[in-house]
Amino acid sequence: MSDHIKLTSHPHSGSATQAGQVHWGASSALARGPLVASLTQPATRNVIGTHSGSYSVYRALAVASGHLDREHRPDLTNTAPVARIGPNPQWTEPGKIISLDPWGHCVSEVFAEQIAAGLDVRPSIAITKAHINMPELKDAITAGRLKPDGDILAENGDVRVTKAAIDPVWYLPGVAERFGIKESALRRALFEQTGGMFPELVTRNDLKVFLPPIGGMTLYFFGDVEKLGKPETKVACRLHDECNGSDVFGSDICTCRPYLAHGIEVCIEMAQRGGVGLVVYNRKEGRALGEVTKFLVYNARKRQVGGDRAETYFARTECVAGVQDMRFQELMPDVFHWLGITRIDRWASMSDMKHGALVAQGIEVVERVPIPDELIPADAKVEMDAKKAAGYFSESVPEAAELTLAKGRGLDE
Amino acid sequence: MSDHIKLTSHPHSGSATQAGQVHWGASSALARGPLVASLTQPATRNVIGTHSGSYSVYRALAVASGHLDREHRPDLTNTAPVARIGPNPQWTEPGKIISLDPWGHCVSEVFAEQIAAGLDVRPSIAITKAHINMPELKDAITAGRLKPDGDILAENGDVRVTKAAIDPVWYLPGVAERFGIKESALRRALFEQTGGMFPELVTRNDLKVFLPPIGGMTLYFFGDVEKLGKPETKVACRLHDECNGSDVFGSDICTCRPYLAHGIEVCIEMAQRGGVGLVVYNRKEGRALGEVTKFLVYNARKRQVGGDRAETYFARTECVAGVQDMRFQELMPDVFHWLGITRIDRWASMSDMKHGALVAQGIEVVERVPIPDELIPADAKVEMDAKKAAGYFSESVPEAAELTLAKGRGLDE
Repeated sequence: MSDHIKLTSHPHSGSATQAGQVHWGASSALARGPLVASLTQPATRNVIGTHSGSYSVYRALAVASGHLDREHRPDLTNTAPVARIGPNPQWTEPGKIISLDPWGHCVSEVFAEQIAAGLDVRPSIAITKAHINMPELKDAITAGRLKPDGDILAENGDVRVTKAAIDPVWYLPGVAERFGIKESALRRALFEQTGGMFPELVTRNDLKVFLPPIGGMTLYFFGDVEKLGKPETKVACRLHDECNGSDVFGSDICTCRPYLAHGIEVCIEMAQRGGVGLVVYNRKEGRALGEVTKFLVYNARKRQVGGDRAETYFARTECVAGVQDMRFQELMPDVFHWLGITRIDRWASMSDMKHGALVAQGIEVVERVPIPDELIPADAKVEMDAKKAAGYFSESVPEAAELTLAKGRGLDE
Repeated sequence: MSDHIKLTSHPHSGSATQAGQVHWGASSALARGPLVASLTQPATRNVIGTHSGSYSVYRALAVASGHLDREHRPDLTNTAPVARIGPNPQWTEPGKIISLDPWGHCVSEVFAEQIAAGLDVRPSIAITKAHINMPELKDAITAGRLKPDGDILAENGDVRVTKAAIDPVWYLPGVAERFGIKESALRRALFEQTGGMFPELVTRNDLKVFLPPIGGMTLYFFGDVEKLGKPETKVACRLHDECNGSDVFGSDICTCRPYLAHGIEVCIEMAQRGGVGLVVYNRKEGRALGEVTKFLVYNARKRQVGGDRAETYFARTECVAGVQDMRFQELMPDVFHWLGITRIDRWASMSDMKHGALVAQGIEVVERVPIPDELIPADAKVEMDAKKAAGYFSESVPEAAELTLAKGRGLDE
């Protein structure tokens, strides 16, 4: 590695050519070409950014402190996916998948020749198997809602799952098109609104693929993954956006963990009936505003004159963050396209934003499954009323007078 | 905002001077000076990067798609911390706190004058209150291990907590010193190993503060937060590094959620006896390697010749990632310095790395509390044996022969 520090790269330096151009959406992996984010062979890079998202900052610490050899290349022996996914027709339909690499799990197979020749191609998706056990599922067995079958669900509450971790891979022209904006405007905002991250976003218009340093997603599959993509396969799904305070600690200000646990019940039932259940867990803490903003908003809600109530629920987030939500469900349907899913039979979500994004991408939602009322914590009624009033899927929309009532606990209660 | 895109900035442009120099560790907030990461007033910036970590990528989408006004400034009305923390003597002791902003929660108060004059100073820490409820705590009540007191712990299992979200703020000379490396080597590695993120890391040696786009931490306090920092206050603590698969879904390959739940029990007991309990939850998924790497390693462990066993537990991670661990506990003690904690009476962790980092920073650990054996899932015995053999705190270190046994489940079991 030379002593010279290159602040950014520019086109016409020949740098993208050694690994080849990326032909996003091409008819095969080879025609698309490998995505190379190598730091050890800079001349082969054909993407902006690098693997493992923001964990690259920790890798930098490891290199700087002498713990990691900067030339390290992963030994991928035995790491291949435990289940086959695709190729599905959606992988090559223009504009269907623009925020993940459909070949990201099988690079060792499809680019075996290039890797053997020394090219540093790395997986952006990994697929493994696990047993999970959540106390809520044991309760569901005790209550008779779930019945152990000794295969998918054991008597002790253990559930067999296949699971996949997916790092985001953005095809910038596709992301721009999805939002109906110019690619140049997208690139410039990504550069400027991050405080100047990755000048290649604006200097390398020839590099069309960006590995953004944001959290990815985790998929939990219940039942036989390889049935996905077949028209006869019934699918149940919970699409869940991270909420650490509820998902892990059981905070009662929202319905996140209760709805997740309910969604998993729905998924297990579907798998037991021969279909496939799927939980998609997106790393988008606090509506992708982050937890600091979320806690600031909690304080503003609980302290406002008139108390914590539905009518001002979204306004308090807007005051602090400038928007109600930054999750941008527009990119979310990509994972269903990747899995070959064109119809979701039971959709454990009431969000109109999630539903709208699926429908806009041509994915049929047959039945929407609301969270059962008895699972809604008392302090979460503010959120639930506000969302129902704003278009959440529900049989009962609260009256206007209802929205003015302070249903949330005060800070010191 | 001008049409001109500035790829990076350089010193001597006068840009750091409008908000003033940062005098890290100075005797007061005013002497230290506000940290300004404003994107709307570039001339006032005196740090590298911007607020909300990697969620700035979503903010960029919000601006690019026209949902967020790029000039938006947060309205911080009613968002102030619900509990007073500090100032503590450690805030101004050289080298004690280098990875968070000790004034990050109270910027509205300590920099009120500058904010009123138009400077865009934002909090990097938020502190609120919540009620949490975890099924494991209800089980602990049923089993008689925890006794409801109607204040900290209710009959229904609800626990009152104060909680804080903290975004990382790195003082680069201090981080370099903590790792015993040159600041220039740290800056260069951070720039190069991320694939060229933030050229200001290498062009702006005059900017000493970096807001890295990595996950931060969440603190859960049990009992009266304002007792912290007093020598007579007994403190119990669980320091937990994120593991989504176990923490949320209850995967049985590790002890993460069971140890977290046990740690919370220890914290509640301490608060009930008049002390303070503290859970520190760090966003460092899969030992800060990320979940894709973690799942690749799971496959390599489960498929290797000889099965999943303790003697090769760390080797499989090294094959894929090049290191066993990237969490760098060296930075972790900062949060205890921030809270004024000099002694932890009950430390619910067996990690020698975490313990060593605390001791190196002069924090006394009185009693180490191992996870009770009955909470260790069967498939997690591989990890537990491997860690005990490598120096984990334990009464019994496994024999060499024990480490060769395949105790982990195969992939298809």
